[in-house]
Amino acid sequence: MTQTNCGTSAVVLFSGGQDSTTCLFWAKERYAKVYALCFRYGQKHATEIEAAGKIAKMAGIKFHILDASFISSLSSCNALVNSSIVMDESKPEQGPPNTFVPGRNMFFIGMAAVFAFHHDADVIVTGVSQTDFSGYPDCREPFILSMNETLNEAMDRQFRIETPLMYLDKAQTWALADSLGVFDLVRTETVTCYNGVKGSGCGHCPACLLRNRGLKTYLKQRDVKTE
Amino acid sequence: MTQTNCGTSAVVLFSGGQDSTTCLFWAKERYAKVYALCFRYGQKHATEIEAAGKIAKMAGIKFHILDASFISSLSSCNALVNSSIVMDESKPEQGPPNTFVPGRNMFFIGMAAVFAFHHDADVIVTGVSQTDFSGYPDCREPFILSMNETLNEAMDRQFRIETPLMYLDKAQTWALADSLGVFDLVRTETVTCYNGVKGSGCGHCPACLLRNRGLKTYLKQRDVKTE
Repeated sequence: MTQTNCGTSAVVLFSGGQDSTTCLFWAKERYAKVYALCFRYGQKHATEIEAAGKIAKMAGIKFHILDASFISSLSSCNALVNSSIVMDESKPEQGPPNTFVPGRNMFFIGMAAVFAFHHDADVIVTGVSQTDFSGYPDCREPFILSMNETLNEAMDRQFRIETPLMYLDKAQTWALADSLGVFDLVRTETVTCYNGVKGSGCGHCPACLLRNRGLKTYLKQRDVKTE
Repeated sequence: MTQTNCGTSAVVLFSGGQDSTTCLFWAKERYAKVYALCFRYGQKHATEIEAAGKIAKMAGIKFHILDASFISSLSSCNALVNSSIVMDESKPEQGPPNTFVPGRNMFFIGMAAVFAFHHDADVIVTGVSQTDFSGYPDCREPFILSMNETLNEAMDRQFRIETPLMYLDKAQTWALADSLGVFDLVRTETVTCYNGVKGSGCGHCPACLLRNRGLKTYLKQRDVKTE
């Protein structure tokens, strides 16, 4: 993870949220060329894509939007792509929450790999995290490892999926953004909130609760250090 | 492969070609409920989809068309989806032929799995064959095995990808169609030809050469048996 990769190109799955923005700057520090890939797939909030474009511009990284609306056509019955469904605020006892879009990360990573195939990039960076996986099976490391092998077999290439946040909690992700010099940018410019509110968000959706709890913890740790 | 599967539902990747039509009837014999899934992805020949719909109707199987046009947007530079490129008639010395669409089978199988997820099906049937793989890495068994694991990890289900043609050559696939009672149907109603010509096809594209050579071999074997 700390090696230098002169000449290597990386494709970052980039939604404009806290996690993928941190990954974008992480990749920028490591790879000679970085592509930011954003997916349009019937999210309820266009503000997410706008925020992503603005952040990529601030980072000086070329921004590509890929149409992945087939994902919502396949699964029109979940809460992230259908406003008439009230989303689960926490993980149910059994199974994933109704914000789970089956196959989403598989399609995103697969599309990023085809983009990488055509742009001679061999690294794919995604901000998934097993620590805060919220019941989504496709955020766990076994999925990522299997997906990596599948990509290599499918296209006869040696891709490498990098997941810098896999074992970080949200406080540690804030610390990483800070160490990359983008703490304020991530705090004010990103959209993590399920209700599409930029920065600190709506404050009550599961994504906001997780983000704000992590921020509080990190700020406390930082205060202790600087005292 | 020979077990009975009462109550199990299967999703068949179905293009209306020789291989997937044989798989459709193979699945019909084995599974309580069968879904035929056809992908629209910028093929040059709409006759393929028409032929597929007609065959599904003849089989009494419900036919679903899924939009997968994002695949051609990702890879607009190959011969199957771009009429201005002359396709390789045989496998080049190095790398796959220019009819290779990177990630195509990965997306098809992935979409079939999400469809299966929503329809409580756990079997996915595809007509890929390692024997006649023509240089496509995503027709080989290592890809299928890895893909199967990836699907299970992505959606926390136990899918089973079935590949009845994996180790059959084209003559054996004709024999299988014959044993399923659909030899004439496959011979006259399917479109395998890269130029979209139904039945025996244009006669000179790689798909026609393979199909017709296999047919000739099988007919010779059958004549010997019935003599």
